[in-house]
Amino acid sequence: MDSSKKFLLQEKDIPTAWYNVMADMKNKPRPMLNPANKQPMKAEDLYPLFNKACSDQEFNTTDQWIEIPEEVREMYKIWRPTPLVRARGLEKLLDTPAHIYFKNESVSPVGSHKLNSAIAQAYYCKQEGVTNITTETGAGQWGAALSLAAKHFGLALAVYMVKVSYHQKPYRRSIMQTYGAEVIASPSMSTRAGKDIITNNPNYQGSLGTAISEAVELARTTPNCKYVLGSVLNHVGLHQTVIGLEAEKQMEMAGEYPDVVIGCFGGGSNFSGISFPFMRHNLSGERNTRFIAAEPASCPKLTRGKFQYDFGDEAGYTPLIPMYTLGHKFAPAHIHAGGLRYHGAGSVVSQLMQDGLMSAVDIQQLDTFKAATMFAQSEGIIPAPESSHAIAATIAEALKCKEEGVSRTILFNLSGHGLIDMSAYDQYLRGELTNFEYTPAPNL
Amino acid sequence: MDSSKKFLLQEKDIPTAWYNVMADMKNKPRPMLNPANKQPMKAEDLYPLFNKACSDQEFNTTDQWIEIPEEVREMYKIWRPTPLVRARGLEKLLDTPAHIYFKNESVSPVGSHKLNSAIAQAYYCKQEGVTNITTETGAGQWGAALSLAAKHFGLALAVYMVKVSYHQKPYRRSIMQTYGAEVIASPSMSTRAGKDIITNNPNYQGSLGTAISEAVELARTTPNCKYVLGSVLNHVGLHQTVIGLEAEKQMEMAGEYPDVVIGCFGGGSNFSGISFPFMRHNLSGERNTRFIAAEPASCPKLTRGKFQYDFGDEAGYTPLIPMYTLGHKFAPAHIHAGGLRYHGAGSVVSQLMQDGLMSAVDIQQLDTFKAATMFAQSEGIIPAPESSHAIAATIAEALKCKEEGVSRTILFNLSGHGLIDMSAYDQYLRGELTNFEYTPAPNL
Repeated sequence: MDSSKKFLLQEKDIPTAWYNVMADMKNKPRPMLNPANKQPMKAEDLYPLFNKACSDQEFNTTDQWIEIPEEVREMYKIWRPTPLVRARGLEKLLDTPAHIYFKNESVSPVGSHKLNSAIAQAYYCKQEGVTNITTETGAGQWGAALSLAAKHFGLALAVYMVKVSYHQKPYRRSIMQTYGAEVIASPSMSTRAGKDIITNNPNYQGSLGTAISEAVELARTTPNCKYVLGSVLNHVGLHQTVIGLEAEKQMEMAGEYPDVVIGCFGGGSNFSGISFPFMRHNLSGERNTRFIAAEPASCPKLTRGKFQYDFGDEAGYTPLIPMYTLGHKFAPAHIHAGGLRYHGAGSVVSQLMQDGLMSAVDIQQLDTFKAATMFAQSEGIIPAPESSHAIAATIAEALKCKEEGVSRTILFNLSGHGLIDMSAYDQYLRGELTNFEYTPAPNL
Repeated sequence: MDSSKKFLLQEKDIPTAWYNVMADMKNKPRPMLNPANKQPMKAEDLYPLFNKACSDQEFNTTDQWIEIPEEVREMYKIWRPTPLVRARGLEKLLDTPAHIYFKNESVSPVGSHKLNSAIAQAYYCKQEGVTNITTETGAGQWGAALSLAAKHFGLALAVYMVKVSYHQKPYRRSIMQTYGAEVIASPSMSTRAGKDIITNNPNYQGSLGTAISEAVELARTTPNCKYVLGSVLNHVGLHQTVIGLEAEKQMEMAGEYPDVVIGCFGGGSNFSGISFPFMRHNLSGERNTRFIAAEPASCPKLTRGKFQYDFGDEAGYTPLIPMYTLGHKFAPAHIHAGGLRYHGAGSVVSQLMQDGLMSAVDIQQLDTFKAATMFAQSEGIIPAPESSHAIAATIAEALKCKEEGVSRTILFNLSGHGLIDMSAYDQYLRGELTNFEYTPAPNL
């Protein structure tokens, strides 16, 4: 047994291609549908809104590997490869025979895995002559990542940030602004969609659905402007596979292979990133690893949602996507894991779930903060509220090993750190944090 | 020329010994004096307050290398070795022929270099049977680091945090509490010193001097309790030399040797850490590197202070220390670089300064935030306000290279990230940040 704590790769080990799980899936994800005529969509149908390269990737079900452009790899070098860590402190605290490993994506300069796809999307936009990009952000992790990527490639970026977060989470707004992005509280007077909402309800504090509508409208009405998205879509999960590809090499350095792989789950980007490269060995029949998505009990799309066609946004502007969904009108509770407050799962994950290739667990907010505090005290890193769902699921698995008296190798993705979420920890420490139950949307 | 961006070491490359620059100094630092009788102090005189190992290190002017205990190296593995980064983005932005490198200490789980000494001090206390430790903290970087180290070694920790920061910087307080430390706003009713101050001035918002008095009093009146300090003293600078020792190996990997080494300067801990290992080659006559300490224009102890004996705290409870000082009653301006708001320099640095082995520059607050924003946009990392002083000094050196048309190799220490200081960036971006001039203390 290797006695190292961290397993480190060199820059030359940064993957040269992303892994496209769709190529290996027996049942391909069902196609997106045009809501107007319910016809399957093609890559070209996305060109007006997204860059062409990502639109093509979205529909690519044949190429197992998609080359990572050299400029993207070059920028990955700012923080990649990220460490794989043996969580010996946590193992000791739990007194478990399990071997626990985590991939530490929190070392990115914006503190999360979101940069992996932000860089790729900004790069392709630049390559195609785009000058302006726009997106929405909730708590601000995705917006911060895209701000840095946009600055690097010389693109102007406008971020529509949900108004309540804009005011309650000023630090993430300042991070975006420090990187040079324009941040607009949504709903805003800068779009028709925003104006209409403000006119009807001057005090409306915004939602991700509204912010998407505003960003989409800006992209449609601005010359040379594209819209980019931080999760849910297939190409975003594709870009995130650098996480699992690096982890695969590092587990080999550690002389182990995971029996269980765990990621927290919002729209699916970090879960896809850590899981898909290992899942390819299940799909080929070589391995039988379990994959667990950890989602909030108050937003349980995989454990309690329905698999059906639904819109990606609240207003119903997007294509119809085949997804495990709580309904696009579902209003998630105000948990601190802002990145997991989304009603649906991407179409690839939804198909894998449908086919029994992965499973899901749902976790209450208080349990995630309890797990987070145990992790902070034993491993030193204060995790993001989102990542804490993966930690709670990992602890449950490790305690099961202890009960059963068996050793299993568990790998989870630490998708981000929680240093910008300390107000949530403060609330937890003061005993003021509560759980939220799942309340189904009336139209599901 | 190597084209890598980062130079990464493995865990086995973590230094096995700290470098003790005092052994190589021709003029040793003058001794601390007992204020009661002005007699030179010995290690034993510190035993009642500090642990024995650190007290001995404080006076060790003979051993060039001091072994790092295995348990300390083991905990260093949580985040060490840290990357050395070639700042190609910043070089490009400045269009300079200079080669700029930085040692990235911001990747520590508490976001700064402070953990390097916190672990060592907590370890020695544990070894000597101490059960409780106490310290003071201003903005909270040191307190956060010590909280993690104390938890790791099973010590109870009480941190006296300057009251104004306790309320204005709740995030750092929550970080300490998440790691399990008790955090007390200073002045407090828990000590005689605190009670006296509150009685005289119920609205007093605290100072580092008062917080030191409270922590020292707690240590003196509590069985099995020691006091620990995060900067200024020789043993703290000693522990920080892991920074420069790693950087030396990494510069070798890059095929270069620094012409200039730069660190920001508060009490001297991070500056000592990055500089001393390189300075040993100056002291031996092999090299002629320049060493630059970058301090705030409003707190310019090295550029405008006097070299004399002075107290380490405002109240005058500590031994007399030979230091470049602005006077122990000096009240620093409210700049955001809280870690640099200290009146004096440690005795080793002061002697090196006196002997012309290093130099110093002072920098205005607005210039540090301008430099920080340039760095964030070109290298991706938002730096701590303290570290931004080193960045501003580096940019000035790099622009000098451009003017003179010569290439020099510049190395600076990125002592921490600024993700918990975004309110300062917000103020800067809104144009509300100001410079502060130096106002000498009346008694200097």
